[in-house]
Amino acid sequence: MSRITGLRVLDIRAPTSRTLAGSDALHTDPDYSAAYVMLESDGGVAGHGFSFTIGRGNEIVCAAVQAFAGLIIGRELDEITGDFAAFHRRLTNESQLRWLGPEKGVIHLAAAAIVNALWDLWAKRRGVPVWKLVADLTPAEFLAVIDWRYLEDALPRDEALDLLRARQAGKAAREAELRRNGYPAYITSAAWLGYSEATVRRLCAEAIAAGWSRFKTKVGIDIASDVRRCAVMREAIGWERALMADANQAWDVPQAIAWLRHLAPFGLRWIEEPTSPDDVLGHAAIRRAVAPIGVATGEHCANKVLFKQLFQAGAIDYCQVDACRLGGLNEVLAVLLLAAKFGVPVCPHAGGLGLCEYVQHISIIDYLCISASLADRSTEFADHLHEHFVHPVRVRDGCYLLPDAPGYSAEMLPASLAALSFPDGAEWRRA
Amino acid sequence: MSRITGLRVLDIRAPTSRTLAGSDALHTDPDYSAAYVMLESDGGVAGHGFSFTIGRGNEIVCAAVQAFAGLIIGRELDEITGDFAAFHRRLTNESQLRWLGPEKGVIHLAAAAIVNALWDLWAKRRGVPVWKLVADLTPAEFLAVIDWRYLEDALPRDEALDLLRARQAGKAAREAELRRNGYPAYITSAAWLGYSEATVRRLCAEAIAAGWSRFKTKVGIDIASDVRRCAVMREAIGWERALMADANQAWDVPQAIAWLRHLAPFGLRWIEEPTSPDDVLGHAAIRRAVAPIGVATGEHCANKVLFKQLFQAGAIDYCQVDACRLGGLNEVLAVLLLAAKFGVPVCPHAGGLGLCEYVQHISIIDYLCISASLADRSTEFADHLHEHFVHPVRVRDGCYLLPDAPGYSAEMLPASLAALSFPDGAEWRRA
Repeated sequence: MSRITGLRVLDIRAPTSRTLAGSDALHTDPDYSAAYVMLESDGGVAGHGFSFTIGRGNEIVCAAVQAFAGLIIGRELDEITGDFAAFHRRLTNESQLRWLGPEKGVIHLAAAAIVNALWDLWAKRRGVPVWKLVADLTPAEFLAVIDWRYLEDALPRDEALDLLRARQAGKAAREAELRRNGYPAYITSAAWLGYSEATVRRLCAEAIAAGWSRFKTKVGIDIASDVRRCAVMREAIGWERALMADANQAWDVPQAIAWLRHLAPFGLRWIEEPTSPDDVLGHAAIRRAVAPIGVATGEHCANKVLFKQLFQAGAIDYCQVDACRLGGLNEVLAVLLLAAKFGVPVCPHAGGLGLCEYVQHISIIDYLCISASLADRSTEFADHLHEHFVHPVRVRDGCYLLPDAPGYSAEMLPASLAALSFPDGAEWRRA
Repeated sequence: MSRITGLRVLDIRAPTSRTLAGSDALHTDPDYSAAYVMLESDGGVAGHGFSFTIGRGNEIVCAAVQAFAGLIIGRELDEITGDFAAFHRRLTNESQLRWLGPEKGVIHLAAAAIVNALWDLWAKRRGVPVWKLVADLTPAEFLAVIDWRYLEDALPRDEALDLLRARQAGKAAREAELRRNGYPAYITSAAWLGYSEATVRRLCAEAIAAGWSRFKTKVGIDIASDVRRCAVMREAIGWERALMADANQAWDVPQAIAWLRHLAPFGLRWIEEPTSPDDVLGHAAIRRAVAPIGVATGEHCANKVLFKQLFQAGAIDYCQVDACRLGGLNEVLAVLLLAAKFGVPVCPHAGGLGLCEYVQHISIIDYLCISASLADRSTEFADHLHEHFVHPVRVRDGCYLLPDAPGYSAEMLPASLAALSFPDGAEWRRA
């Protein structure tokens, strides 16, 4: 047994706005941040988890984590993981706190930080990475971690169980394949919106030299500069490599459709977040209008119910689930199952502080347990801030290599936690 | 001119869980609360506003209000209201804080408290109630307070302008009519889920004696007790009065449809929140299946984009917009226009601490400026906590009487603010 004896939360911020790394049409000056949770246990092992934010307001997510502390401290880990779905519902539907969502925004980000820390703790106790912990669950155990409320109309629970059972076959071979080749990724960090054309060209050349074959650029400022930006990307990466574009919610529905006519010549694999992340029907209308450009969204999709509708409405070609936006890994697993049911490839959102470390597990789980396919799939990668992690991601030839360290890869180095603590860490005192 | 010189936020909570007032299927023990904002101005007038919550976590909304303070303090009121749409977007899309929503949950509740306090201040400076301030705007001025982003596909801005212009005729006559008769309301506070059958019968009898003709009961625990509860309500209020039921998000989509077959004999005007508030397509499916029972939702509808889709999908018969859940009155006005376009009656959510005080203004604005109809419309009322307000609502024969005091009726009595301050006020020290 292992009792959770303490919960600490840290306000961690990296001053990325100084270089405009991560900048896009609506988030012009992000400071990549984490509401960082440490769960202490009497077994001496600590679970680490966080939710990613982009600076101001990170303290609000930290306050929300504190509001949940009473539901965690003193509990046995085995009791939580023994009926993880019930615990997940207790947390995300606490009778007073749920008013602040329900299951969205600040309160859901806070729940995710805690829930992901619980997965980290569980996996460390077992001595395996989170992807392996999940892959070794039986189909029934897998489903038992998911609160199935509100999903039954789209995917009956029994059907999900059948899907998981069918995918047991070949799992070991798929694991061996990933161990050889890694999981396919694409790179975002060559073309942040705040970067100069010269910087973009240089970073693309470096990425090609390192083996990258899939690139994403930011768009959404004005048509002329977006056309120019896509042209620069095609010049830099050629036509044999994949190009995606990300509008970060900049457009109205009719505006997105009109705008994308100008970007059609550049052979975009997808347009990401063309409009409000809440607009299921809007995404569906855009998708019908802009094919063969695919439509992708998910990093701001608030919960499983919105993902359910994106699938039901035929609104997206790519599901960009995030590791923190939903209420932790349990809810992510539900979305992976829904995506499989509706035949939509999952290409997780990452890039932010620690998100790559998280989502590699999600993609591996998806391939091993659910999709059993790599077709048209790639996971986001951005090449920064990995140096702050105890077990940073490793990439080779544009693929994520399988992580081997026990846990969810979420643990940051003590020196980084100290330096990036806001507002008293060395990085911020210097500013 | 009037410069905003200070912003204070108070954590105000009423210990309503002691009596189970406000209790429902998912919110079993609410302490009706407010993240309460006071804007000081150098003209000596203070703007008061708040967002309603149900207890734990109210401190998180207060923290979010503080995060916005730098965008408010030092600004001229006239400059804000002179381009209120632009200010509203700056607030709700602040480049780092928007990550925590965007435009939903804690961060949007906090924006609402501030924005509503600005309306209170603006109306007090003009010496009129908020409904009158809005009713006296020209159609162009009315539209100029709304950030129209993401709405154009459902309601082109020019069409909204035409609608407002067409409704100028007869406005004075409608105001005179409301001044005589008030705006129709329904009562929720006779049948909270935690109340005994005897209490419900007594409260219904008292409400009938006071002139109420529309009642709502809570359901969603189990079919047998819900059937019993509806039967008791029909015995208590008869068949000539209207009965609505509120499931507070308790059901899956197929479960809602099956369950409502058992409640069909009771002639419900509407079923409220039958499933997840985010499930646009689920509400549409339920609506198709349970007619002639109407489907109502809105108190947890996160923003105008979700309302837009509820209308586009034909998902609801009644629009229960809330005064705090959206980003303040500006966004509420957008939803009123969308509802009119799609022919859906607006019956605002209220009942919580101060919500009745707010929503009377919304219904009056809707009738005067937009719907020009009272058909099938009624505004929620619950008979508690009004004693804490400087200008509490007045009801007569089941109707809200027109408020005359300048402002948004949001100001609480200094003694109440002191007593209900959490955790140090007298009400909480006593506990």
